[in-house]
Amino acid sequence: MDVKLRTRVEEINPERGVVELSDGTSMAYDHLVMSTGSTAFLPNIPEQDMEGVFTLKNLTDAIKIKKYLREKECRNALIIGAGFIALEMSEAMRTLGLETRMVYRGKLPAKKWDPEFSKALLEELNNNGVTFIPDTKPVAIEQGENSYLRLITNNGKMDADIILMALGVRPNVTLAKEIGLEIGNTGAIKVDSCQRTSREEVYSAGDCCEVYHRISKQWGYLPLGDIANKQGRVAGKNIGGGSMVFPGVIGSQSFKLFNLEVASTGLDEQEASRSGYHPVSNIIWGNPIASSLAKSLPGLEKLGLKLIAEKSTGKLLGAQALGTENVVSRINTLSIALWAGMDLDEIGYLDLGYSPPFGGAWDPIHIAAQILRRKL
Amino acid sequence: MDVKLRTRVEEINPERGVVELSDGTSMAYDHLVMSTGSTAFLPNIPEQDMEGVFTLKNLTDAIKIKKYLREKECRNALIIGAGFIALEMSEAMRTLGLETRMVYRGKLPAKKWDPEFSKALLEELNNNGVTFIPDTKPVAIEQGENSYLRLITNNGKMDADIILMALGVRPNVTLAKEIGLEIGNTGAIKVDSCQRTSREEVYSAGDCCEVYHRISKQWGYLPLGDIANKQGRVAGKNIGGGSMVFPGVIGSQSFKLFNLEVASTGLDEQEASRSGYHPVSNIIWGNPIASSLAKSLPGLEKLGLKLIAEKSTGKLLGAQALGTENVVSRINTLSIALWAGMDLDEIGYLDLGYSPPFGGAWDPIHIAAQILRRKL
Repeated sequence: MDVKLRTRVEEINPERGVVELSDGTSMAYDHLVMSTGSTAFLPNIPEQDMEGVFTLKNLTDAIKIKKYLREKECRNALIIGAGFIALEMSEAMRTLGLETRMVYRGKLPAKKWDPEFSKALLEELNNNGVTFIPDTKPVAIEQGENSYLRLITNNGKMDADIILMALGVRPNVTLAKEIGLEIGNTGAIKVDSCQRTSREEVYSAGDCCEVYHRISKQWGYLPLGDIANKQGRVAGKNIGGGSMVFPGVIGSQSFKLFNLEVASTGLDEQEASRSGYHPVSNIIWGNPIASSLAKSLPGLEKLGLKLIAEKSTGKLLGAQALGTENVVSRINTLSIALWAGMDLDEIGYLDLGYSPPFGGAWDPIHIAAQILRRKL
Repeated sequence: MDVKLRTRVEEINPERGVVELSDGTSMAYDHLVMSTGSTAFLPNIPEQDMEGVFTLKNLTDAIKIKKYLREKECRNALIIGAGFIALEMSEAMRTLGLETRMVYRGKLPAKKWDPEFSKALLEELNNNGVTFIPDTKPVAIEQGENSYLRLITNNGKMDADIILMALGVRPNVTLAKEIGLEIGNTGAIKVDSCQRTSREEVYSAGDCCEVYHRISKQWGYLPLGDIANKQGRVAGKNIGGGSMVFPGVIGSQSFKLFNLEVASTGLDEQEASRSGYHPVSNIIWGNPIASSLAKSLPGLEKLGLKLIAEKSTGKLLGAQALGTENVVSRINTLSIALWAGMDLDEIGYLDLGYSPPFGGAWDPIHIAAQILRRKL
């Protein structure tokens, strides 16, 4: 395999099947895979490119941040955004001993999650010394006085030695557009289940292209590392003469915030309604391990589990969970139930590996399904 | 609800629908639920009922053991058997500071698990000061000299202050046989999917009755607490005028041994062959969390994952796992894949909640499925 580092694609000529490179050479191709990824979204405010202002999208960003923190004497950090990358960054900054504030235009962090869980996340931020500043939009960045930088917002001025922008990503589709690839409604490259684009010889995989969501039954944009890996494998297999279909995703994701595990799969109520479902939901707070053992382990908090199901069929549409342990475990288990199209009756009686250190004889999964069943 | 404690059933007269009780009274019934449970199996050796020899089946056993340990000065314990109850007991005895030996007729503990995993369990026993004595059968028990008791085996005499028999359980079917209920090949009461026995008005639930195994497609005997709970719910619902079918089990189970989590679901190769399948299998040793993080957490051991699949269809038949964390999580996830009848192709691309603290972009589940796929 021929790998060219530090080389940019200047132009693609799809009629001739040739790529022109920035080092003056060109390469012929039979098949092309567009894996141009995504770019961190910036709010487009004055001086957002100042030294000390970072996004966090790739390894280069991480190296730059580490270098800056090593060379400068930083006492405080400002994070713009409150999604899972912003939350993970707040923990990293606190671990380094920086005073950390999080600025967000909404009321609560992690808007994809139920407000009850977002409140628990807010409490976890507070308990770990992160100040969450709601209803606040960045307006401009300028030189600080006692700190290196100053963020101007609709809610006052805030000094900081480092500013991290974690406002999500947008697909990189410049090259794709140049060769006329069809772009979906999400702004990402349209692909089929073989990862083929609108041009037969061009495939696409990763953060620059769309992905099929098995529950919404729509093509969406979900730039996550595990999905990109799978799409790449499928594209490669098909180009190599094999035949492989990417089965799609259900939107499973997880993150850690200090002592909390947080995970979700499938659709939330808003997404479900937009997809034509009539969702019902509930939240239970159960024991992540058997209740008899939970009593003797006082550090152990309750596990919150939210299920979302279709009212007419009882089929699971999504799940969210939060707690100090065994949270991702529950969501991954429910992910497969969701993937397989199970309804609440079936989920209420699934055979799980019961043992007191890992759950009760009735797991929170069973209990949540049985309770939500009564709402149908 | 009328509850009679300390009262035994002396006789059931199914023709009259009446139960005669040990307190001289009788009770009429329309429906009867046989929940007579199981009894710990004893090897039938001389003096197996001596003071200081215990089984561990129910709460009363546990209270008796605790009382004995409190009143006597015990320095060492002998455990007969090497299943998961025996293993859990060995940890409990070590936690109490007793010198602990485990005597087993086979070569390795936990015979349901792959020998590779059983060897890891043996190592964990040794690392935690439990001596495992293989190829040893109990012959008799007698009074000890320096200890309270002495176990005579085919492999020499062993002194101990307490002896625990953990040799499995047998269903209690005496009453069931007295009223002519049909007994299955397993020795437990035959039931249908509504928990009804061969007599229309008599139901059964729990350790005394059989259960349908969805993968072997046979009725078997699996006396586990979570199954008993579910069967009871189904029996109650049907007696109460509802209509409910117990969907069966797939044999998911888990236990903890010192620092190891151990879990399995479905069939092992022998069980699969006996059920008419042609199993193929493999074991992988992967990272329970992302490999980049695993390197920085040296206490973290590899996670062993074994998959068993049908050669002709690629359908999953069973899974086993062992490691220091996120083990039950993987088995519960695979349990649902097994329950739903998924094949290795589908399992290799399942959408799990990826985040470095909880797994790699390719989870051990994906990797194991993709590798075993090549053996079909």
